[in-house]
Amino acid sequence: MPTEDNLRHAEKMARIKAARDRMMAGKQGEKGLIIVHTGKGKGKSSSGFGMILRCIAHEMPCAVVQFIKGSWDTGERRLLTGHFGDLCQFYAMGEGFTWETQDRERDIAAARAGWEKAKELIRDPRIRMVLLDEINIALRYDYLDLDEVLVFLRSEKQPMTHVVLTGRNARPELIELADLVTEMEQVKHPFRDGIKAQPGVEF
Amino acid sequence: MPTEDNLRHAEKMARIKAARDRMMAGKQGEKGLIIVHTGKGKGKSSSGFGMILRCIAHEMPCAVVQFIKGSWDTGERRLLTGHFGDLCQFYAMGEGFTWETQDRERDIAAARAGWEKAKELIRDPRIRMVLLDEINIALRYDYLDLDEVLVFLRSEKQPMTHVVLTGRNARPELIELADLVTEMEQVKHPFRDGIKAQPGVEF
Repeated sequence: MPTEDNLRHAEKMARIKAARDRMMAGKQGEKGLIIVHTGKGKGKSSSGFGMILRCIAHEMPCAVVQFIKGSWDTGERRLLTGHFGDLCQFYAMGEGFTWETQDRERDIAAARAGWEKAKELIRDPRIRMVLLDEINIALRYDYLDLDEVLVFLRSEKQPMTHVVLTGRNARPELIELADLVTEMEQVKHPFRDGIKAQPGVEF
Repeated sequence: MPTEDNLRHAEKMARIKAARDRMMAGKQGEKGLIIVHTGKGKGKSSSGFGMILRCIAHEMPCAVVQFIKGSWDTGERRLLTGHFGDLCQFYAMGEGFTWETQDRERDIAAARAGWEKAKELIRDPRIRMVLLDEINIALRYDYLDLDEVLVFLRSEKQPMTHVVLTGRNARPELIELADLVTEMEQVKHPFRDGIKAQPGVEF
C-alpha cells in the first residue's frame, strides 16, 4: 500500500512530468548537428565512438576519420572494421602524435589527406554521422586551414548529417559554429599515480 | 628535401618525445580503476559505452547495469545484446526517470535490484569492466546507500576490474575514492534551439 510520503512524491513528480512534457513538446526539430568534444579530460573520443555505435545500432550509415591516431592498433578500429564495415567506414589517416613523427611536413600531409576524405564523407547524403577524431589537434597546429573547415561545414554539410569533432583546444570559431559542445574537464587522472594507459580504458 | 623549419620542428619534437618517454617510463602500473563521469554535459554514458566497446574489441568480458534507463529501447542495448552477448552482459534495471515512474518506492526497489546485480558482477574475477550507467542519480536521491556502495568498492572490487559510474551530481565521497574523474561541462546544447533528442546522438 502506498505510504503518504510516496503519494506526495507521486504528486510532485506528476507536476514535474507535466512541465517537462510541455517543454519537450516545443522541441520537435531535427537536424544534423555539429558536435564538438573538447577539454583536457578523458571521454572526448570514447563518447564519439559511443555515438558511432548508437548510429550502427539504428542502422544509420556512418564514418570515422582519425587525424592523429592511425599508426597504432586501437580497439575501436578493430571492432568497427571487423564487425560493422558495411555500416561504418573507417579511415585512420594519422601518423601518431607530432612528437612521434617528428616531421611537420608529413603531419601536415596526413592531416590534409584526412580532411579530403572527411569532405567526401560529409558531402555524401547517405552517411548520417561523420566522426573527425582529434581534428582539433590538426586545427590547432594549423595543419588544416580553419577558415576552409568552417566554410565547408557551413555550406556543404548535408542537412541531416551529424559531424562530431574531437580533441583538446577546440578553436573558438568552431565552438561558435557548433550546435552541441561539451568540455571534458579533468578532475582526476591515474597517470599521476604511475598507472599506465590500459586496454579498454584508453585504447 | 626537408626545409630548415622542418628540421627545427624535428629537433624540438625529438626533445619533447624524450621528455615524454622518460615520464611514461615511470608509469608502469596497472590496476582496475574506479572511473566517474559526471557533470551536466553530454558524453557521460556514451563514453562509458565507448569504453565497453574497447573492452569487447580486446575480448575482455564486461557488463553494463543501467539504473535509470530500462523501460525504453536504446541503441546501446540493441547493439550489445544483439552482437556481443557472449562478451558483455547487459542489465537494464531502471524504470525511467523518477518523473516518469512517479513512484518512489518502485524507483528504490529498481535501484536496489540493480545494485545487487552490480555487486555480483564486480565480485566476478572474470569480468574486466562494469559500467554502472546513471548510478549517480540513484545515489543522489538516496535510492542507494552511499556508504554501502563506497565500502563495497573499497573492499570487494576485484583488483583488475574497472568500474565506471556515470550520471550528474556524483557524490563528493565517490569522487574522492575514484582514480579517474571527468566532469562533462555543457558549453552549448541544441535543446535550447528547439531540437529534440535524436537517434545516434542521444540514444
